[in-house]
Amino acid sequence: LYAAKLKQQLVVAGYPTKVLTVAAGEKSKSWDQLEQLIDQLAAAHFSRADGIIALGGGVVGDLAGLVASLYLRGIAVIQMPTSLLAQVDSSVGGKTAIDLPAGKNLVGTFYQPDLVLIDPTTLQTLPDRLVAEGYGEIVKCAAMVGGTFWQLTGQIKKIADIRHFAVQLISDSVSFKADVVTHDETETHQRQLLNFGHTLGHAVEKAAAGRLFHGEAVAVGMYQLCRLFEQQKLTAPGTTKQIAARLLVVGLPLADPTLNTPAFFAALQHDKKIRYGQLTLIYVKKIGQPDFYPRPLTEVIDFLQKNLPTKN
Amino acid sequence: LYAAKLKQQLVVAGYPTKVLTVAAGEKSKSWDQLEQLIDQLAAAHFSRADGIIALGGGVVGDLAGLVASLYLRGIAVIQMPTSLLAQVDSSVGGKTAIDLPAGKNLVGTFYQPDLVLIDPTTLQTLPDRLVAEGYGEIVKCAAMVGGTFWQLTGQIKKIADIRHFAVQLISDSVSFKADVVTHDETETHQRQLLNFGHTLGHAVEKAAAGRLFHGEAVAVGMYQLCRLFEQQKLTAPGTTKQIAARLLVVGLPLADPTLNTPAFFAALQHDKKIRYGQLTLIYVKKIGQPDFYPRPLTEVIDFLQKNLPTKN
Repeated sequence: LYAAKLKQQLVVAGYPTKVLTVAAGEKSKSWDQLEQLIDQLAAAHFSRADGIIALGGGVVGDLAGLVASLYLRGIAVIQMPTSLLAQVDSSVGGKTAIDLPAGKNLVGTFYQPDLVLIDPTTLQTLPDRLVAEGYGEIVKCAAMVGGTFWQLTGQIKKIADIRHFAVQLISDSVSFKADVVTHDETETHQRQLLNFGHTLGHAVEKAAAGRLFHGEAVAVGMYQLCRLFEQQKLTAPGTTKQIAARLLVVGLPLADPTLNTPAFFAALQHDKKIRYGQLTLIYVKKIGQPDFYPRPLTEVIDFLQKNLPTKN
Repeated sequence: LYAAKLKQQLVVAGYPTKVLTVAAGEKSKSWDQLEQLIDQLAAAHFSRADGIIALGGGVVGDLAGLVASLYLRGIAVIQMPTSLLAQVDSSVGGKTAIDLPAGKNLVGTFYQPDLVLIDPTTLQTLPDRLVAEGYGEIVKCAAMVGGTFWQLTGQIKKIADIRHFAVQLISDSVSFKADVVTHDETETHQRQLLNFGHTLGHAVEKAAAGRLFHGEAVAVGMYQLCRLFEQQKLTAPGTTKQIAARLLVVGLPLADPTLNTPAFFAALQHDKKIRYGQLTLIYVKKIGQPDFYPRPLTEVIDFLQKNLPTKN
């Protein structure tokens, strides 16, 4: 939608520009696509003085970021995310990736973009379902930040409201993420906070095999985890209900038939955050108070098998 | 030669260990091999708490370093170089790579090893030709450092002498390289010094298509460049002769039929150090005084075409 316009602006400004296009969807985050893109840069004699602009959603950002980090051991990269999910999440923080059959994002680098340029007017052309999934990540951030950010999400009653408050919602989300990443770029500790909702979410997303978008799976993961922690009296009463309300008004799911299935647990065991057989769950004690909950993987699986809803 | 012994020591020390083997030679620095190794790590459920030991020469070090930097966005890596070339050069400094058809090391990362463990006794099993090529890189370092390091290379009269003085030669080379890299990890300026002999060397190596080892090509590149700079009165008289003497006593080449051929210039134009059409040649004003000589690529090519020897 925006490539021709951007190319024209760059050419007018005096930058020779080449447009490389990849197919929409997670399948483009593959070895084949990575190799093809790098071959195209080499064929066009890209040098270390050249750079890449990742114009598109999270798939383009992850893939183009990895291309930029690998070609000639790293050339410049500008992220220009056009989806809400990429704007509030994947374009910031320097994570790049492709997928393996064994799981999403299992191959990648930490490589900070030289610039992240977010234009919220791109949300006008973004389908509602993609606006809603991006909002799933925004609710995740707001639940951990609390305060006026959390209050703002209380004003969102329909998808159009997300577009209306886009500048503030994006700005609050990016500020939170940038703050966390600045303190822990390579995810040794604090950056794990960003995984709130993602441990169960990634497993649901993988088990759903393309049926759920990432932000939808995160909504399921966040709600289910919060519900269990509230049952265990680790999360303040009523928190889950507040989170559920914010997700439901924009049509985000709270459950999925893949929860508590063998495919779900198979994906969970491949979580790349597992260290020494231990998984660190992220939860909120109450809105605005996130915390870590490290537990042996076997204990987590046992607990989830007993407590997650089953499809029957 | 050393994998079984190392594995036994690790297992005895309590570390579960898996040996992955790659075919000898530059051809293993490929997308296919990279993908295969990463698939094997995923299949064995390697986590972020696990790590890789790169036991072998430069090919293994470059490849295993890239695997370690990409899998799960980076796991631990220990370099245990067994060839002299890898000991004095590629194992130190954090460069990782695979090759493209368009050129060597065009894909890779900067990723520092957690430890570099060099055991000079491995040189006892290293063939003479590989000892000599490693010495090519040592002479390169010594020519830039000068002083006692340069004097020491004056004592090397045959390949056996390299093995005899290995500890000091390796130590001096690594100290120099570590010092340069510490000041400029990602090669924006000072690290380019390490390319002395490499601009012509890489091109000869590629044009020779496997006939020359890397250190041999560097010897050719260093001698030829030095000769031309001395002709131009940019290098002190007699410097080239001193360098040539050190290379000749261990059987390293000073010229090659591929110099000044179309294949040589095709490879030169793909040099990944070219920025804005400019190539920075590294030379020595005299022994111990390296310097930068940035010139437009077209001018460099024109000059080389007129001044390099031709095979006829």
